[in-house]
Amino acid sequence: MNNEQLFVKLALDNWHAQIKRADTLFDTLTDEQLQQATAPGRSRGIYLLGHLTAVHDILLPLLRFEEQRYPELREAFVVQPDNAAAEFPSISELKAAWKTVNEKLAAHFERLTPAEWLERHNSVSPEDFEKEPHRNRLNVLHSRTNHLAHHYGQLVYLK
Amino acid sequence: MNNEQLFVKLALDNWHAQIKRADTLFDTLTDEQLQQATAPGRSRGIYLLGHLTAVHDILLPLLRFEEQRYPELREAFVVQPDNAAAEFPSISELKAAWKTVNEKLAAHFERLTPAEWLERHNSVSPEDFEKEPHRNRLNVLHSRTNHLAHHYGQLVYLK
Repeated sequence: MNNEQLFVKLALDNWHAQIKRADTLFDTLTDEQLQQATAPGRSRGIYLLGHLTAVHDILLPLLRFEEQRYPELREAFVVQPDNAAAEFPSISELKAAWKTVNEKLAAHFERLTPAEWLERHNSVSPEDFEKEPHRNRLNVLHSRTNHLAHHYGQLVYLK
Repeated sequence: MNNEQLFVKLALDNWHAQIKRADTLFDTLTDEQLQQATAPGRSRGIYLLGHLTAVHDILLPLLRFEEQRYPELREAFVVQPDNAAAEFPSISELKAAWKTVNEKLAAHFERLTPAEWLERHNSVSPEDFEKEPHRNRLNVLHSRTNHLAHHYGQLVYLK
């Protein structure tokens, strides 16, 4: 493994560690626990499960891999904050979508070379990317790993 | 900037973004808010401020930079969970230590070359590091960036 491959491996190991930790938590929490708010007046577990699923689903086109699988989640779980009156998919449906999206991402991640990790993401034009080469796929991976850690820190309050 | 420098820059940008976000939050919260629990029965803001400070302070020797500046924080903020009966330093003292430790880390980070980021951290022996080259400084940076994001996700509940 050369140094560039090692840099990528470190970032990916970090992502996979966060995913695994979240998987374990989602497997451990009951549906009743996931229906609870993480703190008084704050998002419920089910909302954060849907939110993380939708945000990871959006990575599929953002990283220029493929189309979103669950575009219908975006409105309720990204655009809107949690709302007890909203009609959500069931927890088992959301858990299945969570697994599917992360498996798809993992398969794409495995295939990228270090140079491809440094290619632009889909929210930056080729012209702007010339001037701002840090706006690449790996940058997005870092920021979404933190995003997951952020909400994981809230989800553990359901235990 | 070559690719190896870019890989390091991405990881460091991510760290600094989390630090900046936390700084802003700590500056925004009043002392009264920081004395509150982040959720019922969970850690108080002051505890998480001390915890993050102590964990970042421990990075100084863990990354083989220098000795800890505030070793006295470790017992109350890392070994022990939050405890209303514990004697904590004042919030202003903790905030000053938080800034000092992060400034020291930033200065060391700036000086490291990509190759030095891939050198071992202090919890792995040179012999084990031969077999496990991912146990390096950059790996620790990734994991502590997530650690910060995790607790930031809890601290925002004080707002």
